[in-house]
Amino acid sequence: MDRVFVIGVGMTKIGRFYDKSGRELVSEAILKALEDADNIKPKALVLGNMTSSVLMEQDSLAALAADYSGLRGIPAFKVEAACGSGGAAFYAGYSLVKSGLADTVVVAGVEKLTEKLTADATKALAQAADAEYEVFYGATFTGLNALVARLYMNKFGYTREDMAYWPLRMHEYASYNPYAQLPRKTSLEAILKSPVVADPLHLFDCSPIGDGAAAVVITKDEELAKNIAKNTGKDVLVEVAGIGMATDSVDLGSRRDLLTLESTVKASRDAYKMAGVSVKDIDYAEVHDAFHITGYLALEDMGFAPKGEAPKLWKEGKFAKGDKPEVNFSGGLKARGHPVGATGIYQIVEATMQIRGDFPGYKASDPVIAVTQNIGGIGTYSIVTILRRHR
Amino acid sequence: MDRVFVIGVGMTKIGRFYDKSGRELVSEAILKALEDADNIKPKALVLGNMTSSVLMEQDSLAALAADYSGLRGIPAFKVEAACGSGGAAFYAGYSLVKSGLADTVVVAGVEKLTEKLTADATKALAQAADAEYEVFYGATFTGLNALVARLYMNKFGYTREDMAYWPLRMHEYASYNPYAQLPRKTSLEAILKSPVVADPLHLFDCSPIGDGAAAVVITKDEELAKNIAKNTGKDVLVEVAGIGMATDSVDLGSRRDLLTLESTVKASRDAYKMAGVSVKDIDYAEVHDAFHITGYLALEDMGFAPKGEAPKLWKEGKFAKGDKPEVNFSGGLKARGHPVGATGIYQIVEATMQIRGDFPGYKASDPVIAVTQNIGGIGTYSIVTILRRHR
Repeated sequence: MDRVFVIGVGMTKIGRFYDKSGRELVSEAILKALEDADNIKPKALVLGNMTSSVLMEQDSLAALAADYSGLRGIPAFKVEAACGSGGAAFYAGYSLVKSGLADTVVVAGVEKLTEKLTADATKALAQAADAEYEVFYGATFTGLNALVARLYMNKFGYTREDMAYWPLRMHEYASYNPYAQLPRKTSLEAILKSPVVADPLHLFDCSPIGDGAAAVVITKDEELAKNIAKNTGKDVLVEVAGIGMATDSVDLGSRRDLLTLESTVKASRDAYKMAGVSVKDIDYAEVHDAFHITGYLALEDMGFAPKGEAPKLWKEGKFAKGDKPEVNFSGGLKARGHPVGATGIYQIVEATMQIRGDFPGYKASDPVIAVTQNIGGIGTYSIVTILRRHR
Repeated sequence: MDRVFVIGVGMTKIGRFYDKSGRELVSEAILKALEDADNIKPKALVLGNMTSSVLMEQDSLAALAADYSGLRGIPAFKVEAACGSGGAAFYAGYSLVKSGLADTVVVAGVEKLTEKLTADATKALAQAADAEYEVFYGATFTGLNALVARLYMNKFGYTREDMAYWPLRMHEYASYNPYAQLPRKTSLEAILKSPVVADPLHLFDCSPIGDGAAAVVITKDEELAKNIAKNTGKDVLVEVAGIGMATDSVDLGSRRDLLTLESTVKASRDAYKMAGVSVKDIDYAEVHDAFHITGYLALEDMGFAPKGEAPKLWKEGKFAKGDKPEVNFSGGLKARGHPVGATGIYQIVEATMQIRGDFPGYKASDPVIAVTQNIGGIGTYSIVTILRRHR
């Protein structure tokens, strides 16, 4: 059975880049990843992106990304799964490698959310929801998340302050991350007093809108992976040990349970099984906290906390340095940032660097097994990936 | 080495469906394909689509397609490669099957181009071109094809009448196809007198704008494929014998040769090699004639005609019934129609049915080996697929 290895990673800082178009951002990340992989030439490219058609007025972005990265000619296509586009692109890229269609693949993600007005970005992001049964009636994506957060807080008896420990800790972690969009600490008071976006979600409970790109290079050539690790001074191999993907209805009204991300339950179960690991084996996790509520749901639905208890455990200090798993030391979507189609790739880049020991921010405690969880919509898509260290 | 088989196909008629939204169209095609595959439940779905973000204001379309087809929960994602989105989705779906991530996959394509005004569709389709270096300066997609057609006609000495034999024959074939958008014969005079769109391309030289969806089910379970063929009364197995994909620059200004689709040259070479066939072995072809010019270029760049000679050979009657290969008996994009992200899937559906002998239109002469060629942009993407019959 062929194994798949991560042999190179790259990412850009997340922010507002009025001077860089999408193609420039993504080729910056790809070139960094290729350099990290000893300047290998990959055989195919898969690109995660959600909003290029609306905000950049550009399709064919995968071929553009290949061309602008010096890879003109290789097979390339874009994958869209709303905010899970990056994770889904990785799933497709993993499959290209595993199938033998391409031995070595670069999977990139890019989003340019500040290209037009914030109102345009809000409208573009609402396309993650159901156009006919939700958005038509005035729903925004933040509004739908607010609905879930409200229900969760009512059902399990949490106040806004109880929930606010998520963004508090994310800002702390992000303050160490040179790639983060919001690399600064904040306070409970600032979070609670921040302006309301969609009650009960206030500004500091939400991930920011930003531009960014990230890329990973994967291969099933173990000799090549070992040589690249040696040539580039890394003493570890990072294996993609498991991957799972699942979907759910787009509209919330069709769900069986609004407070469970069923797709995350399925995808993580499949990924753990494929990797032959149990929840207890996992040392490190990057989860999809577009809002604090989705971060808490992720911890519960991946099996790290009983349903309804994630905010309580979090507030008590669980999932911090020295615990198992350690969670979102990047600063998460909340403070590292959430350039939609790139987010799932950022997570894999960060988890890989935590395993290799060269993440340039808040460092995990030498993890062997890491997991990333990327969702599209409110769990319409979930992609869960397990990375494992080999010395 | 696992082999991959097409075990079910389905498609909708192409037209203007004001009463059906994209999700309804695509689930209609998927349900037909699943029924054709003895009502199997696939393990994953890949969806080809280009314009849903702009014309339907809906992302997350792959999960919607799964949900509306009774497949809620399975892995699903959308693939975009401009007009080659369907072919690229098939490439990704083939890879999912081959990799073992999903034994059985449904690959669907859908486009709803009449949802807004024709001007909106024209703008959406222009996203296949380079937003910064072409569209910004006023280029439309038809305008760019007109430029290539003009150059070709000048270089090789063809008149508009010489070129018009392509649409003439496509309309003839489509007149037999119950799924075609333009199922009616036309005349040289009508083609030549049709209104100019972008000189030298007149209305009848161009494929129409329409809505449609198509789906295929593929598996690597040979026993299952045999059982389904038996249970559904088919006496043949259709194998995906080869597949190739390649890209090129998006903007035409960066090309080495405007009159060669280099991506089609590469993709067909790779597909032939994988299938172990040569050009001469191919009995039947469905090629991407969004305009007559791309049809002629396809024949040349796939190796069926020397450069510059396709219109001459075509006018002399080559590629018609009884020749090798027989080409575009569906009526092609020109007259069957071109619901962008679905087109590559229509081609595979049609080629499969020609091989099985149950295509309900103009019938090929009992082909054993068929090829489909789907492009995005003017050869920015090319995907070439070889299908082979086993009794």
